[in-house]
Amino acid sequence: MARGRHQLLVDTLRRFVRRGADVHLDRVLEKTRSEDIAAALEQLPPREARTILSRLLTHPERAAEVVTAYDHAQLADLFRGLDAVALKPVFRQLSSDDAADILGRLPDELSDAILAELDDLESEGLEELMQFADDTAGGIMSTEVFSLDKELTAREAIVSLQESVDAEMVFYMYCINEEGHLVGVLSLRQLLTVPPATQLKDVMVSDVISVPVTMDQEEVAAIVARYDLLALPVVDEFNKLVGIITVDDVIDVLREEATEDMMLMAGLGDEDLALRSTGTAIRTRIPWLIMGIVGLMGAAAMIRAFEHKIEAVAALAAFIPVVVGLSGNVGVQSSTLVVRGIAMGQLDVGEVGSAVWGEVKVVGGIAFLCGFLVAGISYVVGGQNLMLAGAVTSSLFLSMLVAAVVGTAVPLIAERLGIDPALATGPVLTTTIDLVGVLIYFVVASLWLGL
Amino acid sequence: MARGRHQLLVDTLRRFVRRGADVHLDRVLEKTRSEDIAAALEQLPPREARTILSRLLTHPERAAEVVTAYDHAQLADLFRGLDAVALKPVFRQLSSDDAADILGRLPDELSDAILAELDDLESEGLEELMQFADDTAGGIMSTEVFSLDKELTAREAIVSLQESVDAEMVFYMYCINEEGHLVGVLSLRQLLTVPPATQLKDVMVSDVISVPVTMDQEEVAAIVARYDLLALPVVDEFNKLVGIITVDDVIDVLREEATEDMMLMAGLGDEDLALRSTGTAIRTRIPWLIMGIVGLMGAAAMIRAFEHKIEAVAALAAFIPVVVGLSGNVGVQSSTLVVRGIAMGQLDVGEVGSAVWGEVKVVGGIAFLCGFLVAGISYVVGGQNLMLAGAVTSSLFLSMLVAAVVGTAVPLIAERLGIDPALATGPVLTTTIDLVGVLIYFVVASLWLGL
Repeated sequence: MARGRHQLLVDTLRRFVRRGADVHLDRVLEKTRSEDIAAALEQLPPREARTILSRLLTHPERAAEVVTAYDHAQLADLFRGLDAVALKPVFRQLSSDDAADILGRLPDELSDAILAELDDLESEGLEELMQFADDTAGGIMSTEVFSLDKELTAREAIVSLQESVDAEMVFYMYCINEEGHLVGVLSLRQLLTVPPATQLKDVMVSDVISVPVTMDQEEVAAIVARYDLLALPVVDEFNKLVGIITVDDVIDVLREEATEDMMLMAGLGDEDLALRSTGTAIRTRIPWLIMGIVGLMGAAAMIRAFEHKIEAVAALAAFIPVVVGLSGNVGVQSSTLVVRGIAMGQLDVGEVGSAVWGEVKVVGGIAFLCGFLVAGISYVVGGQNLMLAGAVTSSLFLSMLVAAVVGTAVPLIAERLGIDPALATGPVLTTTIDLVGVLIYFVVASLWLGL
Repeated sequence: MARGRHQLLVDTLRRFVRRGADVHLDRVLEKTRSEDIAAALEQLPPREARTILSRLLTHPERAAEVVTAYDHAQLADLFRGLDAVALKPVFRQLSSDDAADILGRLPDELSDAILAELDDLESEGLEELMQFADDTAGGIMSTEVFSLDKELTAREAIVSLQESVDAEMVFYMYCINEEGHLVGVLSLRQLLTVPPATQLKDVMVSDVISVPVTMDQEEVAAIVARYDLLALPVVDEFNKLVGIITVDDVIDVLREEATEDMMLMAGLGDEDLALRSTGTAIRTRIPWLIMGIVGLMGAAAMIRAFEHKIEAVAALAAFIPVVVGLSGNVGVQSSTLVVRGIAMGQLDVGEVGSAVWGEVKVVGGIAFLCGFLVAGISYVVGGQNLMLAGAVTSSLFLSMLVAAVVGTAVPLIAERLGIDPALATGPVLTTTIDLVGVLIYFVVASLWLGL
């Protein structure tokens, strides 16, 4: 939906809500796609969004579509004032992966009440799903998987398909044996091109790609991306088919993970702040900034310790930001390459040494080529002091190499230790490089200038 | 494929190539998935990868799968030594979007020769596709779209489907009228659940989401993500169906765009450097670093101009990195939020004012809350100089606010001017903020300290 049309929808909804023009409101809602309604609700003030949701509740299927598309992290706010009885019909329409995800984000009281309202069978299934960590295959899978006994014929399979209602987007059919083990897969199209009496086991592909419930969602996304899959079956430790992850969930994972990496690297916490309130944003960002303040004040204390050198050669002070700033840039570059390389599966985490060496070669080459420029400018800016220019150039060379090593090694080692490499990068790394840069600068300058 | 198994495959292929063990090699290739072969080839030295490709050429269909999965930007190197006659069978098997993309990346001589080898019909189609910019809907679509006349019956549609061979992953069927205009869509599953004599026009959904060939690929990806689509039809200016974009292409776009944003923001150019050679990496990164050097040397010159103030109060030098570093952090945070917000479609680009105001509120709040900490530490580190502590605290407050404004406004304005916001961010922005920070620091300090 184009930007202009989207804004028009937001304005129209708002106007009708304020006027209490329910008939007009219902008519607009009826002819608008659920995903567009969800996007508009995200932009409306909470009270108005809640009024619109209450209109939608009379059509639980529609309401469920809107709820699915709405930012799940914000749903607790949208549901305020609604009780379990009002929400039950919506939850019955949600697919199991969305229902479990949403329940996990609601206040315990409300989610317990909703689970109590649902049938035992439904609530047991959801409670089981909620056991899985959010960022694993189990956490994003849906249990509504369409599977068929491998002994069935193509004709019988088509009949089952026609009768199925609940399964998520069917395009692959998974074949199971009598124990429920995943033994094969075939596409809907293949099913149409074989004689109706053919048994599935004779046409299915038995080399089917599946993932365990415990696999990290990033790895799941990488597999879907690599093999261009539309859906990926999920199995338990006994290879029993327990769920399915569809490509739309994977798209959400990719967007979420890229956002998370960028936020962490900028010291913005690991959540998408775009839709958060001022208060939340301040709370999330302040710890990182305090860390930065403490680190840079450490650098200030270090500079003060070298103050007698600045008193001897006043121009020394001028080049501190050059050394610190450029090393910081290099550190960010190195760590960005590593963090993104890991996310894209292009980097072998086992080979820290070769990754560091590769980056040292590149940065060394750049620093060498830039050396003449740095020497020239710092000679002029520093007041034709040749020794000072030598000190700036060589300390910059050294601290850029250190930044490259630290910037490459830290996220790689973090990944091996099971820490998010983006978390290990960000402001912590920059501050470390700042401190090291100041130290290198003064030590090297002391040598050149005989201070 | 797990990391260990992947390394094993790389090692095995390498061993067999070196030994010239062709029979073993063929056997391994035969039982390995094409995508895994492609990933292994990317890790092998070019000469060995080329040997393996030449073995694959005897099975053009297989070779085409491997070529599709291989990093297209690196294919020119992999194809070295092969001529158009050898490559023709592979190109005939490629889907049109991949073929056009790859031809666009090969040396002109080779791509012209390949086009000359192909039938007129094939080469005309590809040349048409190559006209579209790489990052538009036309640039990523395939022309092998499965469409049906809306007057057909369900039975006839199923027969057409059974006879089709070339179309990309069929799950939606697009219905066209006699002029070729896109008029409706229905799913394969729907087709199976209606009486065989039903005409498509009576069951199709006529409100079908489509995009024009000229639409930017990021917008295309956002639409697929929002509406959870598996494929998106592409139409020309007369609403004639000309192609299809499948979800696997969209996944590639999302990964590519996130990588590009992160690379640009770190000053690494707009291409994925992970797989590039040392020389290419140096060439790509050096312009950004030179820009940084020039900017920070400007800051150095500015500090030198204020040197008499440092000579008066030596401790002044110590806090330059604090003000510059923290303002830089804030600027990166603000611009990251904007760049990601634009990419995720959460930010209304029209409202620069409200975005800036929102960010100023957050950063103002953070700066106020951190003010006591900054004042306290700088009082201690600065040698109990109350005026100096006041100068550091208030100049930091001011320069953080400036960083928030600049960091928010620049990428938003860039986006409106049609410049990639990530490009407008990165090192250019950081260096600007550095310069402004130094200026603010010395001006504010002069006032406080009466210098």
